Amino acid sequence: METNVQSAHQDIMEITARRNVPPIILVLVVANHVLAHHVIISMAANYTSYHKEKFSSVGRSPYLLQVREKEALEKLLEGLQQDSNAQESEQSHFQYIAAAPRIGIGMDASVTPLRHGGLSLVQTTDFFYPLVDDPYMMGKISCANVLSDLYAMGVTDTDNMLMLLGVSNKMSEKERDIVVPMMMRGFKDQAEEGGTAVTGGQTVINPWMTIGGVATTVCQSNEFIMPDNAVVGDVLVLTKPLGTQVAVNAYQWLDQPERWNRVKLVVTEDDVRKAYQRAMFSMARLNRTAARLMHKYNAHGATDVTGFGLLGHAKNLAKIQKNEVSFVIHNLPIIAKMASISKACGNMFGLLQGHSAETSGGLLMALPREQAAAFCKDIEKQEGYQSWIIGIVEKGNRTARIIDKPRVIEVPAKDRDGELW
Amino acid sequence: METNVQSAHQDIMEITARRNVPPIILVLVVANHVLAHHVIISMAANYTSYHKEKFSSVGRSPYLLQVREKEALEKLLEGLQQDSNAQESEQSHFQYIAAAPRIGIGMDASVTPLRHGGLSLVQTTDFFYPLVDDPYMMGKISCANVLSDLYAMGVTDTDNMLMLLGVSNKMSEKERDIVVPMMMRGFKDQAEEGGTAVTGGQTVINPWMTIGGVATTVCQSNEFIMPDNAVVGDVLVLTKPLGTQVAVNAYQWLDQPERWNRVKLVVTEDDVRKAYQRAMFSMARLNRTAARLMHKYNAHGATDVTGFGLLGHAKNLAKIQKNEVSFVIHNLPIIAKMASISKACGNMFGLLQGHSAETSGGLLMALPREQAAAFCKDIEKQEGYQSWIIGIVEKGNRTARIIDKPRVIEVPAKDRDGELW
Repeated sequence: METNVQSAHQDIMEITARRNVPPIILVLVVANHVLAHHVIISMAANYTSYHKEKFSSVGRSPYLLQVREKEALEKLLEGLQQDSNAQESEQSHFQYIAAAPRIGIGMDASVTPLRHGGLSLVQTTDFFYPLVDDPYMMGKISCANVLSDLYAMGVTDTDNMLMLLGVSNKMSEKERDIVVPMMMRGFKDQAEEGGTAVTGGQTVINPWMTIGGVATTVCQSNEFIMPDNAVVGDVLVLTKPLGTQVAVNAYQWLDQPERWNRVKLVVTEDDVRKAYQRAMFSMARLNRTAARLMHKYNAHGATDVTGFGLLGHAKNLAKIQKNEVSFVIHNLPIIAKMASISKACGNMFGLLQGHSAETSGGLLMALPREQAAAFCKDIEKQEGYQSWIIGIVEKGNRTARIIDKPRVIEVPAKDRDGELW
Repeated sequence: METNVQSAHQDIMEITARRNVPPIILVLVVANHVLAHHVIISMAANYTSYHKEKFSSVGRSPYLLQVREKEALEKLLEGLQQDSNAQESEQSHFQYIAAAPRIGIGMDASVTPLRHGGLSLVQTTDFFYPLVDDPYMMGKISCANVLSDLYAMGVTDTDNMLMLLGVSNKMSEKERDIVVPMMMRGFKDQAEEGGTAVTGGQTVINPWMTIGGVATTVCQSNEFIMPDNAVVGDVLVLTKPLGTQVAVNAYQWLDQPERWNRVKLVVTEDDVRKAYQRAMFSMARLNRTAARLMHKYNAHGATDVTGFGLLGHAKNLAKIQKNEVSFVIHNLPIIAKMASISKACGNMFGLLQGHSAETSGGLLMALPREQAAAFCKDIEKQEGYQSWIIGIVEKGNRTARIIDKPRVIEVPAKDRDGELW
């Protein structure tokens, strides 16, 4: 494993030099990629003996290939967009509007006006590689991540879900028979938690495990909130802490001495295990209450923070604004100790630069200044989780930036024995 | 390749003996599997040099693993079904109804009643491995296959589609940059042909290429046709010929001397190339006109013929009938010469037994006897393609069978120079 991560990292540096691609993207790709393989093993490790040799399936070339894939897919999607007034959202999530003008361009979900009186079809799909050991929690995280695209548009009621599974042929029968039903159960339970149900799906076999789904709702135009109405004077609110990718990676490094040696000066093993738990539960948490409160507190638009990292998604949201505004981010709420790890790893994650990928992250929304504090108080009262005012909306040319020395807010501020938050 | 197919075939026989699984299922799995790898090469072969060594990625164990996966997934889906009153349709397509009674159980698509006056959400998803050389046609086939689940319910207008892609990291940059956009284009063009549009999707990288999508429509209950109303005296109509799996496999055997030697006594290379072309265009053809005519001619229910083969899908349709009926099939319309190949291959495909898997096959529907001929005439007039009365609905216990010596209808009856049909 170590050697793979090593070689992958070298590959990245070569490719970065050669192809002038931001290394963070590549690291993200590799991180995902390693995780995809790691989880098959680590999930199995909960039940069966640990087969190190399986890591041999993670070779050198896959990274290079996947990196090229990444660039190429982005090109392809751009192509698809151009020939269809398309606009990308999410690293590998493409959407475009058809000839007839539609609501939905550049948003997290596609919005299709229906023939039936004023109704719109709001839909999204997402799937990715497993990234936590616990299959049940992985199912919940995947479901929460799919639903989050609807919640980002203020949709609170989802009419239907479909489950999309890619089951790895590298798993033993025993691993599979235990792991896959647990993932399905987690996905299904979280769908019910979200007030919806899984009524179908598709499963194929593929070497790398994938899990995801489709979320669909049919609603009146007053049931969703367009994301493009931010005005000067609004503030930016974030509903989950950052650092999930760092936490998940650091947790794996506990088994990788060379990696662990680089960070053990700034964190303890207990810090990492706690951060991993916090990340896991945060990723599995639904953004549904946040979506409800977007209506109550008159949000001017929102997006969910995932693969592009905080700054990437802030830029996407800024880009589509109707008014001449820009977003400035001053505060970074981060899962406790993950900022230290990111610093200790140099530019590997870019967490403080807003580049570190998140999975099933929080909603980033523009709220009227006078309502933001009430929103944060209300969501904490209802769910027991903090939200944070992290920045402002000022006059500008539809860009987003993080100030030079952002304030890092450790989440939680301090550990309480026996409590996660 | 040959050695892989060989070893795969040996594996199958061993497993069949050991696990008492119908060989046809396993052959189907292996066929798919070989195709998945074959197409990456063969598609590329259209543009780049042919890399035989790539076949080395097709090992012996994947077949065994995939076979186990298959069995296990079926178990898992049964499990999911049990705990949710679920009912399977399609080999790896699961659907179940939630606590609240819903229309949709056991049908090709899930049907979810909506909060909005009498409207229902009708949805399906499907994705699989590429199986023809031409990426553009593969995109069309995949799209037609997804839409077919809605057409089987008499749905003619699809509101939205999402595209689901798994891009292989085994493709070279050049292969990918040519192949993937062509697949996307084919999918998109066929969606437009079906009067709908692709507004989003998701792409991930995975060693085995997959393509598919999601089709969704919102409609009044009179816009779709429940499949469970067949009555004694109805006749069964099929709207596309059988034999797509045989044709696609035979075409690949042209490059595999050992395989080719087994069938070259019954078919010429030209027969096989023609059959492959016929299969490809048949799979890409939409069942939309058939869906429209289901309303005009008062169809009592339909399903689309895909992975389970004709008999498998006939049984699924019979099982859910409200009346005490059974289906008896007398005629098998088959792409010209494919029956001979199937016979020459012993029990490998089971085409004449109705076991051979089809991709994007025709609709199998129960029609009032007095309307069936008019249906067939009408669809041929509109599309230029034949449909066939292949059986009857008699009193019985909701089963389906093919008579001992069914009449094989060669499609087309005879070749016309320069014409496919």
